[in-house]
Amino acid sequence: MKYYAKPLNKLINELSKLQGIGNKTAQRLAFNILAMEDKEALAIAQAIIDAKTNMKYCSVCGNLTDTDPCAICSDPGRDQSVICVVESPKEVAAMERIREFKGLYHVLNGAISPLEGIGPEDINLKSLIKRLQENDDVHEIILATNPNIEGEATAMYIARLIKPSGITVSRIAHGIPVGGDLEYTDEVTLSKAMEGRRNL
Amino acid sequence: MKYYAKPLNKLINELSKLQGIGNKTAQRLAFNILAMEDKEALAIAQAIIDAKTNMKYCSVCGNLTDTDPCAICSDPGRDQSVICVVESPKEVAAMERIREFKGLYHVLNGAISPLEGIGPEDINLKSLIKRLQENDDVHEIILATNPNIEGEATAMYIARLIKPSGITVSRIAHGIPVGGDLEYTDEVTLSKAMEGRRNL
Repeated sequence: MKYYAKPLNKLINELSKLQGIGNKTAQRLAFNILAMEDKEALAIAQAIIDAKTNMKYCSVCGNLTDTDPCAICSDPGRDQSVICVVESPKEVAAMERIREFKGLYHVLNGAISPLEGIGPEDINLKSLIKRLQENDDVHEIILATNPNIEGEATAMYIARLIKPSGITVSRIAHGIPVGGDLEYTDEVTLSKAMEGRRNL
Repeated sequence: MKYYAKPLNKLINELSKLQGIGNKTAQRLAFNILAMEDKEALAIAQAIIDAKTNMKYCSVCGNLTDTDPCAICSDPGRDQSVICVVESPKEVAAMERIREFKGLYHVLNGAISPLEGIGPEDINLKSLIKRLQENDDVHEIILATNPNIEGEATAMYIARLIKPSGITVSRIAHGIPVGGDLEYTDEVTLSKAMEGRRNL
């Protein structure tokens, strides 16, 4: 890459450190940035600085936020008796998009994965237990971790941890996605769908 | 996207203004940036600012550079008698990579395209003519614009413009790429390859 001037090389190099951005894409993006209006390009740089400076994890639920506690935790209109446990802030956004869940969240910022050496103490779990101990209002914990090995293991672990306290622990349903095709559904999903059948 | 805090939303929004970066990718990149060390993320922002501040077009050849004239134009070791005309700085880098061409470049920063309303006056062409007028050393102009409609039109236009001055004007060869397959070569390329055949 020494065929470009230093600042351009540096930019390509920095951009290629982003996940999923290879050298070719970094090069394309760098030229794109150079072709932009100064104002536009500097707005991107400023947005990175602002986000990095102002975004933190909510001390209550672990969600990414610019205020602490986050907007959801400090909203008195939310149902304080239900906590939905998710793996990352992206899932909070996905949940909020359906506009149905009115309770609170707890973001683990990870999932238990023995293979990757991530244990229960490496995710944001202690603070959930603390929340439950300090707050008698919580009646239900909905485990909405991902339906993969790590997510299932995490859900099982949390369920076993919380159940003795008498709080209802539920798991979101697995099954065939709406609009999905029975013929092309994998065996595990199909078996989960059968297992989770409900009387009509 | 209002389900994220403002600085995160802003970052996703700014990143999605980059060419070829959709909302999903911008979201992934934004979370990736937030997960980075502060130092790493700020280095990206700084690289954007630095590149945008220090990179300019060489007043001689039109290449992107941080010094004016650029490193190639001001290198006395380069052959001042040959100028290779390319469409963009990326092609200068591609040419430099083969380590064979020792002459100078002229970067058009575009190609003539009547369909997109880009005429000869919209690309960096006047300065090439000026270079030739001010410098008697130039004996050959190699037209290395891309082998597509715009590149061919641009090459033809420049050739007609320069030829009367007596300077040799050449065009890089079209043909079957090395390692390519005759069977799968398109008709135009094959016909160009036949046309450009050389005695052995």
